[in-house]
Amino acid sequence: MKIDAVDFYYLSMPEILDIGDGSQDALLVRVQAGEHIGWGECEAAPLVSIASFVCPMSHSACKPVRDSVLGQRIDGPDDIRRIGDLVRAQSLDLLQADHTLSGIDIALWDLVGRQRGEPVYRLLGDHSATPKLPYASQLFGDTPAETLQKARNVRALGYRVAKFGWGSYGRGTNQDDANQVFAAREGLGDDGVLLIDAGTIWLDDVEVAALRLDALHACRVVWLEEPFISGALAAYRSLAALAGSVRLAGGEGCHTYHMAEQMIDHADLGYIQIDAGRIGGISVARRIAELSRARGVTYVNHTFTSHLALSASLQPFAASEPDAICEYPVEPRQLALDITSEHLVPDADGYLHLPDGPGLGLEPSLTGIAPYLVDVEIRVGGKTLYRTPKL
Amino acid sequence: MKIDAVDFYYLSMPEILDIGDGSQDALLVRVQAGEHIGWGECEAAPLVSIASFVCPMSHSACKPVRDSVLGQRIDGPDDIRRIGDLVRAQSLDLLQADHTLSGIDIALWDLVGRQRGEPVYRLLGDHSATPKLPYASQLFGDTPAETLQKARNVRALGYRVAKFGWGSYGRGTNQDDANQVFAAREGLGDDGVLLIDAGTIWLDDVEVAALRLDALHACRVVWLEEPFISGALAAYRSLAALAGSVRLAGGEGCHTYHMAEQMIDHADLGYIQIDAGRIGGISVARRIAELSRARGVTYVNHTFTSHLALSASLQPFAASEPDAICEYPVEPRQLALDITSEHLVPDADGYLHLPDGPGLGLEPSLTGIAPYLVDVEIRVGGKTLYRTPKL
Repeated sequence: MKIDAVDFYYLSMPEILDIGDGSQDALLVRVQAGEHIGWGECEAAPLVSIASFVCPMSHSACKPVRDSVLGQRIDGPDDIRRIGDLVRAQSLDLLQADHTLSGIDIALWDLVGRQRGEPVYRLLGDHSATPKLPYASQLFGDTPAETLQKARNVRALGYRVAKFGWGSYGRGTNQDDANQVFAAREGLGDDGVLLIDAGTIWLDDVEVAALRLDALHACRVVWLEEPFISGALAAYRSLAALAGSVRLAGGEGCHTYHMAEQMIDHADLGYIQIDAGRIGGISVARRIAELSRARGVTYVNHTFTSHLALSASLQPFAASEPDAICEYPVEPRQLALDITSEHLVPDADGYLHLPDGPGLGLEPSLTGIAPYLVDVEIRVGGKTLYRTPKL
Repeated sequence: MKIDAVDFYYLSMPEILDIGDGSQDALLVRVQAGEHIGWGECEAAPLVSIASFVCPMSHSACKPVRDSVLGQRIDGPDDIRRIGDLVRAQSLDLLQADHTLSGIDIALWDLVGRQRGEPVYRLLGDHSATPKLPYASQLFGDTPAETLQKARNVRALGYRVAKFGWGSYGRGTNQDDANQVFAAREGLGDDGVLLIDAGTIWLDDVEVAALRLDALHACRVVWLEEPFISGALAAYRSLAALAGSVRLAGGEGCHTYHMAEQMIDHADLGYIQIDAGRIGGISVARRIAELSRARGVTYVNHTFTSHLALSASLQPFAASEPDAICEYPVEPRQLALDITSEHLVPDADGYLHLPDGPGLGLEPSLTGIAPYLVDVEIRVGGKTLYRTPKL
């Protein structure tokens, strides 16, 4: 087979709110090779990611992603990895390329899986997928009272693990933040596992971050996620040394294998969180899952969008028993739900199962996404380089 | 003052060749605040960088760069740094944002410098600019015979330091590569300082890279640049341990302060090479220049485009005596020369001087760039988000 077409579909809610909710738009990718198709999703700014697929070449190491993908042979997993390497070499100076590649790589794994009738995790070498304990991932409420109610809701829905993040956390006083964390603990009950996400708010300021540790300890928080930006390794290490039983989590901002490797090796993380839609796709995510296991750092997916993205993000660590929990967005916008007609839903015991179907095991619903499709046109030098394709 | 307008100008040669020559296109930025203007340049894929300025918001940490720049107060250097921090926070998940910010940051320094009648280096705290010894930076010839001729040419022009890179280097046999390096040494003469640039060709493969060391030693090469991609810190360290008198250079791919910090701290570099047009502008480049001096790693600019970009890239280490050499592209395309009517040219003793004029000390020639202006239009949801502005 060879890659005949790559189509990008930019989807958006009618209104985008200025909140930390990444499910308000999406960029789907459909790859065609002969009669076979596969779907993927970039967790990335849609317009910019499309531009990096179609832009004119600047020089030999700053080519559009398209030049390393269209027309390539795709007979199996080795070709997917080879295409990824080619994109990284030929788009070395095109920063956005990793985000664009991510959706393409996912779509290629889906395509090969469907063609062979195998789920992606089996192509990756895992015989079966271990059920994961999903953690209910959501934003803090605007007030502690709202957070309390949110935590009660997810407990009532049967979630044993919950994460609250973003919103006002880290933007007010230490006491404001403590009130939020205590509210989450109260709503979740004594036996729930509580995770807190600071959304990189302290950049690399260890001192300010450390002020929050008392409340996190008092509320038995299991991880503090992204106190700092991904590259601030020394800050992560310093805070980890102060944090005792509260382990640090991070890594969603990583867009290369080496960036994640450095976080695993030098940030003293308890948990490395990888978004397959940013890191370069399932191929790179899998390498990091293997590395983190070897290093004793727990691998967790980062997913805050559709169930297509959720399936993609679970494939790289499907069979890893030590990596037992997974992120599960519980308050996605309608768009994220409408992308697929089938959804991954926890079973009666609260566990999430990867689908057995070929490829990612679920696919976009064309009627579901049609209302969200954004009309885009990019013209350069009198030529149309991109126009939103028909569904 | 407040920022009233930011305009991007995408310039391109009529034909882009598939070679490692980054001077074939350019992205200029003009910032206006009241009656004041400043110019900068992104060393980045133009269309993608424009898209990251104008794209619709995806969520609170994935906003277009525009949202953190337009309307901001700009009364001095602290505002420039504040705007950079704001872009990094509000465009956290927009990978291309660092490249787009770079040109804006440079233009803001130029604007404040012109408004105050001071060169940028003085705004950065340096009293005067030390002359730099420019190294003649160019691609290898297609054959060793061509490289020999190129090296003879730059020697005849009076350059005492020369760098050859990219082309076929690392793509053929070890002997092919050795032939190229010996040709460069022969042409440059015994007393010339020779630098070699591998253009990340070995990714992170230490073993293959190490095969080249014998020829580099035999030719008394002072630095081997970018044997690996920027994040491959362990590979850099391992090769450095084998390389003896040949020091490693790298860093042009860094797009954040922390990425460069990690290379300085963990890659065992002799030379850290920063492109102000990629790293986030002069503000971030300056911080790295200070850090590298404290760590005993020599700071060098990376510049392969216009003399506007050259001036911007020299400002951050203008007064640093230990950082004595600078990259100087000797074979730029006509576009790169036509961007400014004035040029930075070595003096009779072979030294390069930063201009004394306010801001960057030179400015784009509107008549020079007009023939290269690329017509771009980006439409989303029926609205034009970008159209090439009139010069």
